[in-house]
Amino acid sequence: MIDILIDRIIDKRNPTVVGLDTRIEYLPSELINKHKRRTLDFKSASDAIFDFNRQIIDKVYEYVPAVKVQVAYYEMYGISGLQAFYDTCKYAKEKGLLVIGDVKRNDIGSTAEAYANAYLGRTNLIEQEKGAFNLDFITINPYLGIDGVKPFIKACEEYNKGIFILVKTSNPSSSDFQDLYLEDKKTKVYEKVANKVSKWGDITIGNKGYSSVGAVVGATHPNEAKRLRVDMPHTYFLVPGYGAQGGGAEDVCKSFDNRGLGAIVNASRSIICAYRQDKWKQKYSSSQFAKAALAEVLDMKESINAVLEQSGKIYWR
Amino acid sequence: MIDILIDRIIDKRNPTVVGLDTRIEYLPSELINKHKRRTLDFKSASDAIFDFNRQIIDKVYEYVPAVKVQVAYYEMYGISGLQAFYDTCKYAKEKGLLVIGDVKRNDIGSTAEAYANAYLGRTNLIEQEKGAFNLDFITINPYLGIDGVKPFIKACEEYNKGIFILVKTSNPSSSDFQDLYLEDKKTKVYEKVANKVSKWGDITIGNKGYSSVGAVVGATHPNEAKRLRVDMPHTYFLVPGYGAQGGGAEDVCKSFDNRGLGAIVNASRSIICAYRQDKWKQKYSSSQFAKAALAEVLDMKESINAVLEQSGKIYWR
Repeated sequence: MIDILIDRIIDKRNPTVVGLDTRIEYLPSELINKHKRRTLDFKSASDAIFDFNRQIIDKVYEYVPAVKVQVAYYEMYGISGLQAFYDTCKYAKEKGLLVIGDVKRNDIGSTAEAYANAYLGRTNLIEQEKGAFNLDFITINPYLGIDGVKPFIKACEEYNKGIFILVKTSNPSSSDFQDLYLEDKKTKVYEKVANKVSKWGDITIGNKGYSSVGAVVGATHPNEAKRLRVDMPHTYFLVPGYGAQGGGAEDVCKSFDNRGLGAIVNASRSIICAYRQDKWKQKYSSSQFAKAALAEVLDMKESINAVLEQSGKIYWR
Repeated sequence: MIDILIDRIIDKRNPTVVGLDTRIEYLPSELINKHKRRTLDFKSASDAIFDFNRQIIDKVYEYVPAVKVQVAYYEMYGISGLQAFYDTCKYAKEKGLLVIGDVKRNDIGSTAEAYANAYLGRTNLIEQEKGAFNLDFITINPYLGIDGVKPFIKACEEYNKGIFILVKTSNPSSSDFQDLYLEDKKTKVYEKVANKVSKWGDITIGNKGYSSVGAVVGATHPNEAKRLRVDMPHTYFLVPGYGAQGGGAEDVCKSFDNRGLGAIVNASRSIICAYRQDKWKQKYSSSQFAKAALAEVLDMKESINAVLEQSGKIYWR
């Protein structure tokens, strides 16, 4: 699967991902009003959210390789919200986009297998097997160790899918546990995780030199990313934290290799709420939210590519 | 919320929880046939699973304080499966049971807040707020540190709910990261997590001396549990791994305090698949699966209470 992602990145000349972390508060009021009946309930809110996502996908699908859909924002609206999650992922795939489910699932082996089946593989229905969500990639949390991760790696191999395992997250308190020094007083917890993730990925290295077992490395930690890029030469990075969380193009550049590969950068709020940004709100009305999102997507692409070019990381330009 | 759980435990004289990790393979074939049309699809499988859960709840609700519902086994059946998850939790609550959602959610602050709203709190729908799943407790994963945990603690306070944070999990490879020694060469990663969880819980200690911020401590690690019981005097333990995973009554006893409180023990497969156990299958036919589950529940209760009594931990007997 990682080869397919890399091909799309090269084809679109764009190593960025649109994060559909959509919540009702982000929608223009006219779109909410279009869907609500007397009051807004979970069903009408979810319909409005899917409509919003669909319009953004329609604008950006030719310019980005993938979308990342954060399931928390859909679970928040109950079963209707999860239907909007399902519909969004399905629609994005129909438009030719790869779909990264940002689900951060984790559990003991037998339960991890259920999650792997749910999102990447197929579920046993006695006389047949069927895929429940059928995404291309998901994110997972490594705290339970290899027997909680193995079912996901197995699904990557069996169904040609990919995962990104949390290594160094973008939030300030990622330091609480991830930055603790181990007994050699040199290695931090996240570096040990990185080392394991790199090894776990060795069996699924594709023909571009990268594994379908990737890592999440926050844009807000450029120094750590720079070292991890060297220590994990076969691990693709999903880089969240660009834009609203404070990471810039210079920061995310550290996660790329010398060919301009090795990382895919996600931005969510800065893209889907672009129409509210000072930068765009003169040019686009709120009903043109999808156009504003595309403008921000292209801007982000240009910013990152410019820095990659300055750094001599220009393979696919 | 922890006070309510403790009251229920004392009232039922039973510190155990039924784990509804239901998958279609666990159901008697006559129950599957009752629901399937031509073939089994996600909808009919989910209907059968909810029917199975409902019958078990009907038998056990007078004897246990709570059920633990593992969401992975429902996500596996797509939107229909999640509807069965919702219906199961709702039905259990209607029967007076507390519901622990075993969801192991985790993310950066803003996203953790969305999860906290989804499962414990309420979701903003502009003109009103509504709870999507409205569970009593959920499990969460601490890898992202305090700003990924804080929204859940806030929800505990605001909505009178509880959480159990993963500290030492029941699976064999929990040692991969949780057992790494830190730079003082004495403290392991999970002990550092334990220390933080204990501190994070200080603000929500109820009138029984326990916090609504609890910990997950696997039954398969009795020595670790014994030490954690001392080091975390205000932290209630959710103890998975009893039964099918190998933990016994002697093992789980270490997680209890001298009053017979401080822990709630979960068993899933050994209860819901009791009708297939050599121990019960002579006595109960497959259509009596719920009766067999109750027999196993009472057996588990007796085993644990007997060991607690032997150890002088008899407060509520």
